[in-house]
Amino acid sequence: MSRSPGRKQENHKISRELFVLTYGALVAQLCKDYEKDEDVNACLDRMGYSIGIRLIDDFLARSAVKKCRSYSETADMIAQVAFKMYLGVTPSVSCSSATGNEFSLILDKNPLVDFVEELPAERASLCYCNLLCGVIRGALEMVHLAAEVSFLQDRLKGDAVTEIGITFLRKPEDRKHRRNK
Amino acid sequence: MSRSPGRKQENHKISRELFVLTYGALVAQLCKDYEKDEDVNACLDRMGYSIGIRLIDDFLARSAVKKCRSYSETADMIAQVAFKMYLGVTPSVSCSSATGNEFSLILDKNPLVDFVEELPAERASLCYCNLLCGVIRGALEMVHLAAEVSFLQDRLKGDAVTEIGITFLRKPEDRKHRRNK
Repeated sequence: MSRSPGRKQENHKISRELFVLTYGALVAQLCKDYEKDEDVNACLDRMGYSIGIRLIDDFLARSAVKKCRSYSETADMIAQVAFKMYLGVTPSVSCSSATGNEFSLILDKNPLVDFVEELPAERASLCYCNLLCGVIRGALEMVHLAAEVSFLQDRLKGDAVTEIGITFLRKPEDRKHRRNK
Repeated sequence: MSRSPGRKQENHKISRELFVLTYGALVAQLCKDYEKDEDVNACLDRMGYSIGIRLIDDFLARSAVKKCRSYSETADMIAQVAFKMYLGVTPSVSCSSATGNEFSLILDKNPLVDFVEELPAERASLCYCNLLCGVIRGALEMVHLAAEVSFLQDRLKGDAVTEIGITFLRKPEDRKHRRNK
């Protein structure tokens, strides 16, 4: 991955508050645009996906990480390097399946909801932070990892923690390859 | 100004790239919602205003600045403390009127347009970063300073620099007071 020539390495940090409030304005606008929570959630996911496929270059360039050798290593990388770099928090990671392709990122504190008290009653199905799922999905796709990403728990909905579930989808070629062994 | 109890002081910084791409998604959504550039600009300004009136508390708490004694000091504060804190850049300031109430913030580099090549031809009147004007206007209003804030030059439109104009509006009481002297 190459960086744009002349791109400065320093000064990549900004204050979180402006981001959090701007994100809030985006969600509010989508709630005006779409009546159904499902449509807002889908739109946030699509937007996040578009962001993820662009952000991955920046991530690979700045983190200088090497290729991950397992789903587990990838999940750790997302939590410990990517979340830390982009949101200033480090979720804990747990593997939630015997097949080793399902992981949970658990956030005790979700920085994106700093200024949000609770969801309005008429927006009970809103996944307020769904953009994050799209970002992760988009970024993973760019390193040839198909995944389903969604919120499994959300403190905004009264859950004890915020939990993002990542299910890595095995490629058909992998299975085929394995069968041929 | 008091801070929320238990609010952490550390870790207020996040990566700029995620913010810049999320802001781009917001502007793109508004361009879908509104046909006229003027309506997008007005909407960005309104959103920024709502952000500014909330962000000022955070700014006063974190910057611990004292009351400014002049418009000039206020303009310097916006450029050197607020822009630095929230966007990681420091515009230069120039006073552009003999009456001392008009200022320009000049940005050689606008961090918000990092991923934007140029405006599409059909969006020639779009003030892409108009949210910033609203933020400044909203924040100033909360410290009892009415101001008009708008883009005077924009590198996205081919200008050499990006220039935000701030005109402090004298309060009617001030003028009355002065006449009575």
